[in-house]
Amino acid sequence: MAENGKKHWIGFDLGGTKMLCVLFDHKFNVVASIRKKTKAEEGAPDSLGRIIDMIERALEEGHVEREALAGIGLGCPGPLDLDNGIVIQAPNLGWENVEIKNILQKKFKTAVAVANDVDAGTYGEYRFGAAQKARCVVGVFPGTGIGGGCVYEGRLLRGKTGSCLEIGHMMVSNGSRLCGCGRRGCLETVASRLAIAAECAIAAYRGDAPILQQLAGTDIAKIRSGTLAEAIKSGDKTVEKIVRQAAKQLGLGVGNIINILNPDIVVLGGGLVEAMKDIFLSEVKDAVSKRAMPAFVKAADIVAAKLDDLATAMGAAALAAESSEHK
Amino acid sequence: MAENGKKHWIGFDLGGTKMLCVLFDHKFNVVASIRKKTKAEEGAPDSLGRIIDMIERALEEGHVEREALAGIGLGCPGPLDLDNGIVIQAPNLGWENVEIKNILQKKFKTAVAVANDVDAGTYGEYRFGAAQKARCVVGVFPGTGIGGGCVYEGRLLRGKTGSCLEIGHMMVSNGSRLCGCGRRGCLETVASRLAIAAECAIAAYRGDAPILQQLAGTDIAKIRSGTLAEAIKSGDKTVEKIVRQAAKQLGLGVGNIINILNPDIVVLGGGLVEAMKDIFLSEVKDAVSKRAMPAFVKAADIVAAKLDDLATAMGAAALAAESSEHK
Repeated sequence: MAENGKKHWIGFDLGGTKMLCVLFDHKFNVVASIRKKTKAEEGAPDSLGRIIDMIERALEEGHVEREALAGIGLGCPGPLDLDNGIVIQAPNLGWENVEIKNILQKKFKTAVAVANDVDAGTYGEYRFGAAQKARCVVGVFPGTGIGGGCVYEGRLLRGKTGSCLEIGHMMVSNGSRLCGCGRRGCLETVASRLAIAAECAIAAYRGDAPILQQLAGTDIAKIRSGTLAEAIKSGDKTVEKIVRQAAKQLGLGVGNIINILNPDIVVLGGGLVEAMKDIFLSEVKDAVSKRAMPAFVKAADIVAAKLDDLATAMGAAALAAESSEHK
Repeated sequence: MAENGKKHWIGFDLGGTKMLCVLFDHKFNVVASIRKKTKAEEGAPDSLGRIIDMIERALEEGHVEREALAGIGLGCPGPLDLDNGIVIQAPNLGWENVEIKNILQKKFKTAVAVANDVDAGTYGEYRFGAAQKARCVVGVFPGTGIGGGCVYEGRLLRGKTGSCLEIGHMMVSNGSRLCGCGRRGCLETVASRLAIAAECAIAAYRGDAPILQQLAGTDIAKIRSGTLAEAIKSGDKTVEKIVRQAAKQLGLGVGNIINILNPDIVVLGGGLVEAMKDIFLSEVKDAVSKRAMPAFVKAADIVAAKLDDLATAMGAAALAAESSEHK
């Protein structure tokens, strides 16, 4: 257990597009939170400086002394060396082999836990959100890519090389678009925000998505989840069709996962789901019911995440608390 | 722990085509084994009688008194009620809601453990075979259908409804043949023995598989794994092509599993692999290397099962020993 007085935790979501630093009290209530855009171009030294700065500012805003900080949990994009707390590669951060755990441990003289961001998000939903007390929780987070995590009997499943549930790279269709991993047919190529944005950009270019065209033009970097939601709300039927088709494909992937892990609950989270909850829930449920084993379909609740973009930070903080309890 | 003297275990593989009853000593050496064909048509009462008879004969042949029997482990085709030891449905046995655990417990006055047959086989390979001491073992057993199991940190992964790793029902191709589960595109429809046999029967009918035609005609019930192996060995090139293509498809499914569980080791077993080890190992490895994440491919050994058709019986006996130790 943490020493007396040391009752605050930092949860840090080190995303490819945004960084979120949250200070929690001992009951995991939010005391302060700082959000910044991630700048890939600034490189490791500068971004490390910004991370440290954000933590210091959160402590300051929360009127919490450094000595009252029991630990820091980080959710990072992979691949990671979990045992040593090293980010092996994070192209969106411009990082290679950054010993983030060591650096923060030295700087703040406190325990630091590093986890995959989607794993942390799934753990957050298990501890505080939509999947509390479930025996087998699968988290599916479609965003720029598509990540997954699994909490099995209270613990994150870990693969041989740290992460697992790379559901974005599950093959769901023979030979479609080229994926970032170099393969074809991956779920990410048909159901991620990038895949949706690319198809919508084509529609906008053709004049089939006038509202989206107004909001974001044909630049896929500007077609965010919120933009898609707004275009649909304002009547872009083609955008809605494209999003529904992607959600269906995601549902096929979720159906495969259900056939493999037979979970109690599947939590859908991430940017796309936050922005278009109803569409994603209904299409995924429909596709799963057509895809997975009937007994498994019946056994698995499919729900939206509850913590929204706090999930990773909360989960990471809880993992830090867990690991310091076990020391 | 078992009482002194009670040092023998029965492992029973209750397959859809054969029943195998093995008596093991306390070191899990085979003392006696009895094999019989499964007769679906005889119904539950008669087949239960035969199971009891086989256990009694094994004890007799091994000169082991009933009192020296520490427990019985059964590997059964699913779906099962694991907690209560009930076979909910086993079409190949003609069983519905058979309380096999209760029945055998009363008859033999000893501990009885019931497990899914492929789970037991995977556990057998983990304890005694090709995957000893591995942290995350995935077993993939293509036969009449395609089953899977996972031993994670020494324990079988269990889904909400008992079993998991239903990899035969993973979707690998959009809309192919109809599967027994009522869906389309399942791995079983392209890579199981039945799928292979059906395609080879067509080849035989067309005159493209003369040796197979001689050995088994065009009756898919007669085209067993051994028959396929013999036809290939004797020069049926079309049969070899069909088997290789099926093994490739299996490899895509294994690649998906590797992306999800990131295991240390994948053990390929079951009738098809036993009969055509080289073909299956090489095609699966090749497809996995093209399909799964490079770091995961590197981390996962892909090997053939070592215990052949003893795997399920040994695993079931070991599970019985485990569960009686924990009482």
